[in-house]
Amino acid sequence: MAKVKRIHHVAVVVPEIEGALAFWRDALGIEVKQVEDVPSQKSSVAFLPLGDSEIELVQPTQEGSGVAKFLAERGPGMHHVCLEVDNIDEMLDELKHKQVRLINETPLELEGRKMAFVHPKSANGVLVELYEITSL
Amino acid sequence: MAKVKRIHHVAVVVPEIEGALAFWRDALGIEVKQVEDVPSQKSSVAFLPLGDSEIELVQPTQEGSGVAKFLAERGPGMHHVCLEVDNIDEMLDELKHKQVRLINETPLELEGRKMAFVHPKSANGVLVELYEITSL
Repeated sequence: MAKVKRIHHVAVVVPEIEGALAFWRDALGIEVKQVEDVPSQKSSVAFLPLGDSEIELVQPTQEGSGVAKFLAERGPGMHHVCLEVDNIDEMLDELKHKQVRLINETPLELEGRKMAFVHPKSANGVLVELYEITSL
Repeated sequence: MAKVKRIHHVAVVVPEIEGALAFWRDALGIEVKQVEDVPSQKSSVAFLPLGDSEIELVQPTQEGSGVAKFLAERGPGMHHVCLEVDNIDEMLDELKHKQVRLINETPLELEGRKMAFVHPKSANGVLVELYEITSL
């Protein structure tokens, strides 16, 4: 059976990263590993590692994207929690077998990871992202 | 300067824990450490450790409490993220000095921990809880 290993990150949608860092970096003192454009997510993302997890601050860079709509409709806030699993194909098979509703029935393959989202309807209103790290 | 050590937990408000465990425990396979009544939070809480963090499923047990109102108004979902700090008194002083809006200006002392909430207005819409673990 596939296994959840850790909370990989908690994603927070923000209108703009520099302003958000005034709280997370400057007030709380959390170190920023990097800030980069993530075209696959139509976002710019700041990565702030904490223990074996991290906070990710996500600024939409394209109108009409999922995160841009979230920000427009609900304002800034927690967007999703990402769980690292040891085998995402097995995990998705098991979830389908248990009638869990998935946004991605098969994983998206990106550099260094495979990922899929579980629908919030099946996860107590939480948008859950699953990651399998395929290379470091 | 006080330091954030890790994401202590991510709290998810749910209408009832047993139903929520159908996803987090039975479908994802995350082990439940314990389920207990937490009168200070007017809730029943299931603790699901993951790496050096955990998911907490929070079921309101009293009408009119903060989590009960959250559930009634917004439905189930992510409620707050809790960050463990090494010195909460110092951290709160620093946050006040930096004009961060706090829900608790001084920490609440509970068994084994001191805690305070930062106002979401100062934290990109995220309700941030701060913990200092005072005993294990």
